[in-house]
Amino acid sequence: MTDLRPYVARTADLRSGKLTPNSYLEESLARIAKREPGIGAFVVLNEAGAKKAAEASTARWKAGKPLSPVDGMPVAIKDIIETADMPTGQGSPIFEGHKSQRDSATVFALREAGAVIIGKTTTTEFAASHPWHTTKNPHDPTRTPGGSSSGSAASVGSGMVPAGLGSQVVGSILRPSSFCGVVGYKPSVGGINRSGSHDHFSQSCAGVLAASLADTWAVTRAITERAGGDPGFVGVTGEVDFSKPVKPKTLAFLETGGWKVTSDGARKAFEAVKEKLAKAGITIKSRKDDADLDAAEKLIDDAQALTLAINAWEGRWPLNTLHELAKDKLSPNAQERYIEATKMSQSQFAGLLKRRADARAAYAKALAKYDAVVTLGACGAAPVGLKTTGNTAMNVGASLLGVPALTVPVLSDENMPLGLQLLGKIDEDAALFGFAAGVLSIVERNDLIGAA
Amino acid sequence: MTDLRPYVARTADLRSGKLTPNSYLEESLARIAKREPGIGAFVVLNEAGAKKAAEASTARWKAGKPLSPVDGMPVAIKDIIETADMPTGQGSPIFEGHKSQRDSATVFALREAGAVIIGKTTTTEFAASHPWHTTKNPHDPTRTPGGSSSGSAASVGSGMVPAGLGSQVVGSILRPSSFCGVVGYKPSVGGINRSGSHDHFSQSCAGVLAASLADTWAVTRAITERAGGDPGFVGVTGEVDFSKPVKPKTLAFLETGGWKVTSDGARKAFEAVKEKLAKAGITIKSRKDDADLDAAEKLIDDAQALTLAINAWEGRWPLNTLHELAKDKLSPNAQERYIEATKMSQSQFAGLLKRRADARAAYAKALAKYDAVVTLGACGAAPVGLKTTGNTAMNVGASLLGVPALTVPVLSDENMPLGLQLLGKIDEDAALFGFAAGVLSIVERNDLIGAA
Repeated sequence: MTDLRPYVARTADLRSGKLTPNSYLEESLARIAKREPGIGAFVVLNEAGAKKAAEASTARWKAGKPLSPVDGMPVAIKDIIETADMPTGQGSPIFEGHKSQRDSATVFALREAGAVIIGKTTTTEFAASHPWHTTKNPHDPTRTPGGSSSGSAASVGSGMVPAGLGSQVVGSILRPSSFCGVVGYKPSVGGINRSGSHDHFSQSCAGVLAASLADTWAVTRAITERAGGDPGFVGVTGEVDFSKPVKPKTLAFLETGGWKVTSDGARKAFEAVKEKLAKAGITIKSRKDDADLDAAEKLIDDAQALTLAINAWEGRWPLNTLHELAKDKLSPNAQERYIEATKMSQSQFAGLLKRRADARAAYAKALAKYDAVVTLGACGAAPVGLKTTGNTAMNVGASLLGVPALTVPVLSDENMPLGLQLLGKIDEDAALFGFAAGVLSIVERNDLIGAA
Repeated sequence: MTDLRPYVARTADLRSGKLTPNSYLEESLARIAKREPGIGAFVVLNEAGAKKAAEASTARWKAGKPLSPVDGMPVAIKDIIETADMPTGQGSPIFEGHKSQRDSATVFALREAGAVIIGKTTTTEFAASHPWHTTKNPHDPTRTPGGSSSGSAASVGSGMVPAGLGSQVVGSILRPSSFCGVVGYKPSVGGINRSGSHDHFSQSCAGVLAASLADTWAVTRAITERAGGDPGFVGVTGEVDFSKPVKPKTLAFLETGGWKVTSDGARKAFEAVKEKLAKAGITIKSRKDDADLDAAEKLIDDAQALTLAINAWEGRWPLNTLHELAKDKLSPNAQERYIEATKMSQSQFAGLLKRRADARAAYAKALAKYDAVVTLGACGAAPVGLKTTGNTAMNVGASLLGVPALTVPVLSDENMPLGLQLLGKIDEDAALFGFAAGVLSIVERNDLIGAA
């Protein structure tokens, strides 16, 4: 877990010239040469393009004119997000090698901010569940890195890059971040512009996986300052420089549907950190202390099933047209999802949306009394095996609720990394980062704050 | 204006075999052969595919098993909407001939409902303002058909097809419908699934242009029953069969920003029909009678400028990446829009969204007292000239407000068709159709109701 290579924390070195984007990139490429063969995080690399971008960035830092805090930062891009200089395969043999010739809104914004777009990272098929690529967990090659943002999590967790872009509609950022020992961030729904990314579900969000909170925030704000949120959404706002840690006064513990399938080791690790937080003077309440929390718990208990049903209807397209084009190239899982979708009706979908709205209202009501929610980043360590990507039960709550969530790698289970997850209030993403930093200070992991 | 060829009104003939989809398509192709050379509504036609689809539909009607009320209906598709069997050019030389190999959600649903996808119709560049194609108004070749759904409006207005798909973010359905003498429908925001259509703005809607209200409704429900609305939206609901006319009790007249630039002829035509409605016992009030209407008017008076500013920020992508790819192939107008966008900030955009939300709230408050709004479908007849597509001032209100709107061709100006526009309450699209039919009954245009 010491493989992480924060970037923003080194701003002073970049300013002084002790570190240059050129040398940072060289180290990234050396790490890739060493570790990538055993991990398989990347679908494609653009070494020449990255070197050129790092060269230009080095000149800007030297001139004292960086474009943003992420100027010169190598960033890996999940392969459902379009890039003008690299193909976008969506983790599917149907699209492998497909050149859209354009950047997504996020990638364009990152380039404007001076970031070094280094390569495309593996994703499960269409960012759903089937892993066509065999990416391995950087902490144990017999285990999954999680999914669907598998390659972004593995590339950050192995120190190849300080940050990667991901996306989450069920648990695709938070789970792999927890499994690979990196910071994972799913914004408030609409918070980061998804244009040019192949994730069109109503719960889906673009998000960031990175080596520190400050890196995560810097990448986020570099994007949203320039590209905003989804159309119709302002997008994540707040100071561009990472703000100070804020010690939360009150936290709510949410079991979500995940707690009952959580490993003993993970529960134990969580209880230990909860105790530490309580000792630091933070009030932590749970469903047994507060009827509003209990009401919210009841409405998110089946978040997995509810989310999969919403996704099935919303995912009918483009599966229907791909099914006609190249049925044989769809995974059995994708074919099943399509068949499920054809059995659904518009009025059934209306009922699902109502249930989601009710859950969101109950959560908002309960959270009025707390600074944030604390829970586990996953139901346990990354499981052994590469054919599945692990249980989403601990991660789907934030997706269903549309609220911001962060997972920070401060726990462990089976000698593997495990995240502590914080959920915030909708559109209060900046505040959540402050509380997360406050929690990290208490558990003495200032390396994960990583502010300049 | 007698060129319109309603389809759903002929359901009894289709059932009895007096009319077959084969013969209906033959008549469409004959009309196209005769009129298309002088109009230029289509970018591409798929005659073979259409004949095959009509053949299959004919067999279904013969067996007494049509798939839906639009089974066998030829439908034209605006060329920003993807089709598996025809390229999608987006009205831009950058994308001309581009084969996405997939159907949009709307087109896939229409095929499932048995419709005959006959061809792709002209659009201004990216459904914005520059007309690369020179489509002519079917009622006068020296005049514009309006835009951006130029070809869909012209193909329906000339009787080539009974219905076409369009899209509107400013005035791209209602205006060409008014200019070409067809029924035009922009749904409540999110009401018709836009997936696979290149219109990603937050105000943008997929919509329908057709020969009658019943045709418009049948196409809409054929889509939404199968594909719903945008992700996260239920989509337009209501009986699949067209419901009965409902005489409105109270209507609000809204000037919007358009009235002050409306021609004398159009004003006169509107006053005459207003009088007719009043004589039929409908109470019609305006801003001078009702302070809430006046408050709403004030907030939508600058709907054009506000909408263009919202679109500029939201349209930054993909213009930025296209600007890098092929700047020379962008119209001067698109290049200017991009430059404008680069000058905007996220916080400015937040202010624009606030103004839009305020306008929506004021409209909702005012409309609580009325069944619907009545106003003009355009500021006058289609103007002479083919380099611009006419003023959007009368159409942008519905776009900004996100409410459903219908224009019906019952008026005239300069011996050209002119629409009467009705705006409804958000997500009460079915009710708006009923009121529109009620108004058509009063102005004795039952041919435009067109129910089976």
